[in-house]
Amino acid sequence: MATQQETAEARQHSGVGFVQTQLATLFVPPHWLKLAGGGELGPIQVAYETYGELTPAKDNAIFICHALTGDAHAAGYYEDDDEKAKPGWWDDLIGPGRTLDTDKYFVICANVLGGCQGTTGPGSINPETNQQYRLNFPFITVGDIVEVHSALTRHLGIDQLLAVIGGSLGGMQVLEWAARFPDQLRSAICLASAAQLSAQGIAFNAVGRRAIKTDPEYKDGEYETGAGPRYGLALARMIAHITYLSDQSIEMKFGRRLQDHDTFTYEMLPEVEFQVESYLHYQGKRFVERFDANSYLYLTRAMDYFDLESQYGSLTNALGKTDARFLIASYDSDWLFTTTQSKEILRALIECGKHVSFIELKSPFGHDSFLIEIEQLQNMITPFLEQAYQSRLMESAQKT
Amino acid sequence: MATQQETAEARQHSGVGFVQTQLATLFVPPHWLKLAGGGELGPIQVAYETYGELTPAKDNAIFICHALTGDAHAAGYYEDDDEKAKPGWWDDLIGPGRTLDTDKYFVICANVLGGCQGTTGPGSINPETNQQYRLNFPFITVGDIVEVHSALTRHLGIDQLLAVIGGSLGGMQVLEWAARFPDQLRSAICLASAAQLSAQGIAFNAVGRRAIKTDPEYKDGEYETGAGPRYGLALARMIAHITYLSDQSIEMKFGRRLQDHDTFTYEMLPEVEFQVESYLHYQGKRFVERFDANSYLYLTRAMDYFDLESQYGSLTNALGKTDARFLIASYDSDWLFTTTQSKEILRALIECGKHVSFIELKSPFGHDSFLIEIEQLQNMITPFLEQAYQSRLMESAQKT
Repeated sequence: MATQQETAEARQHSGVGFVQTQLATLFVPPHWLKLAGGGELGPIQVAYETYGELTPAKDNAIFICHALTGDAHAAGYYEDDDEKAKPGWWDDLIGPGRTLDTDKYFVICANVLGGCQGTTGPGSINPETNQQYRLNFPFITVGDIVEVHSALTRHLGIDQLLAVIGGSLGGMQVLEWAARFPDQLRSAICLASAAQLSAQGIAFNAVGRRAIKTDPEYKDGEYETGAGPRYGLALARMIAHITYLSDQSIEMKFGRRLQDHDTFTYEMLPEVEFQVESYLHYQGKRFVERFDANSYLYLTRAMDYFDLESQYGSLTNALGKTDARFLIASYDSDWLFTTTQSKEILRALIECGKHVSFIELKSPFGHDSFLIEIEQLQNMITPFLEQAYQSRLMESAQKT
Repeated sequence: MATQQETAEARQHSGVGFVQTQLATLFVPPHWLKLAGGGELGPIQVAYETYGELTPAKDNAIFICHALTGDAHAAGYYEDDDEKAKPGWWDDLIGPGRTLDTDKYFVICANVLGGCQGTTGPGSINPETNQQYRLNFPFITVGDIVEVHSALTRHLGIDQLLAVIGGSLGGMQVLEWAARFPDQLRSAICLASAAQLSAQGIAFNAVGRRAIKTDPEYKDGEYETGAGPRYGLALARMIAHITYLSDQSIEMKFGRRLQDHDTFTYEMLPEVEFQVESYLHYQGKRFVERFDANSYLYLTRAMDYFDLESQYGSLTNALGKTDARFLIASYDSDWLFTTTQSKEILRALIECGKHVSFIELKSPFGHDSFLIEIEQLQNMITPFLEQAYQSRLMESAQKT
């Protein structure tokens, strides 16, 4: 068995090793962030991590936009993690020699506005009242989230990103970024996402929010930190979790296998009879330990509201201003963000003459594929980024 | 405007007109029903309706098996219904000259065992304790439900049914009936169903049950009649309801349209922003008015447990003993009970040399199609029943 020191050393030398979350304070009054839904917010604290080194020309930065319940911890370990701790959520993609190659690129990932993992959100203290914002937190949109990401990028001294990359709600941020700050990105990678959430997606989000709001412990959002609507939030996660998997992947992983018996108990009271039930309960319980119910309400609403077409008049209006190269990928078993939706983005980009690559990837894992099918991402993203990197180098060489 | 009397007359003359729910008391001790999961139950009250007349030869009976939350009221109106009341849930199919032609057939529909619409279930009084059964109600299976249907059929003096027909959980009952009482049916119509619930189906049911059980008003099933886990039961229904619709039908019906405004409110507090949210809340609320939470737990568990293959060793073992002719239909947009699942039934029936017709119907309405796409059902079921009817007549003629 490895000693603790050996484990620590192994961690330090695999991928990006030990990492630290950093904090930036942006939009300090009177430079409030003007919100899309009206009102203004500031100061805004942003939790972010970076991996690799920024070049002196500051031209090698890649920004990762995380999905609904993700965080800034995309790669590596924290020094105080216990041995069993998992590395950051996209660790396999990030590090020396990996797809987001930290020998070449400077990789940034930041917790979204409205989140609960270090960036200002409904659980943060409102400086005006010295109380948590809770439901007094202003309504936020994907546009507002991207405003903060963009400001963080400038705060780090970066005028233009080599790439912005994200899946699901992260992909929505990528599209919004291209629409809102067309000159700030050289390339954009949008995975398992859409220019607007489907009505079915809104329906599932609505039920999740309802589960939270009808839990008596929700108390109209005025629950104490650490307390709150545990059951409601767990339910919301369980519902959402099913939508992240495919029928096929649930079948493969659990089928109709029973949890604790070889045969049916034929009893009503065992809460859990099938493995898939047990798994969902576990997912719900684990989620409650790491996520805030009010944040969940705000972020799912932002996701529901996201509609590039209605916001910019048309998809071509939204995506026509940037010169970024696009890589769009969908997964054949993803029924929450379908290939049809990715193709709408593709069509708009082609219509306005953009450079775009599109692929429908085969995977049994449904919407979660972009977090699981690492090899596909490696094969696809590595050369795409390399191309962006080389074109940037050539451009610099021509200038000098 | 029609007078009340005119409305009443119109109702009386359309379809089957006014109907009454009848009650039968079966399995009177010591003739208890022996349950598949162990234990016994009796007496069992069954609520049922019949439409049309039974022939003296008692050879024209069709039994309708209802789905999860259905009831015995498949057609017609009750005399004390208010003007706005809807007719029975399959009214368009049942009546003189209709597909289930009450000029020719004697149509029976009974509320399932474990239900809450008149048949003995967890909300019924346990004669041993004079209290509601609640969670002391024994575990029931689809097999037990069919035992009661079968007993009701015999109680009505009918040895053999011309047809048994049902969709979803009703289709499961049809399959179980063919396996358990192979000589009791001449034909079987199984719509939007499966020989076992998929793991994804179990997952959605598990979340629904969790919503009920974690509602503090559930009180481990000991809630008062009329009270109970209103929010939890509504949530369970909202989740299930999404699975009954297709992505496409939600898109067609609601899209991303807003409920009360032309533009986003950009506020967290309006509970409802999109029409689809409002619709789901309404569905949940309406369901709570008519359904019992404990019944929902028992019936979804029975659905989860249903597995013809594991119960009978193989599908061919289960379906090989009957001489009934089968009609199997699935819907292309149904993702809860897929065409693949219907084809498994088809394959087994072909393998054991049965007479079977199969069709995948095109419809945008998802799993609910069998309740909505009446014309397709008419075109398909009318000739299938006519064939069964004629073959029965020929058989009788040969005998005499």
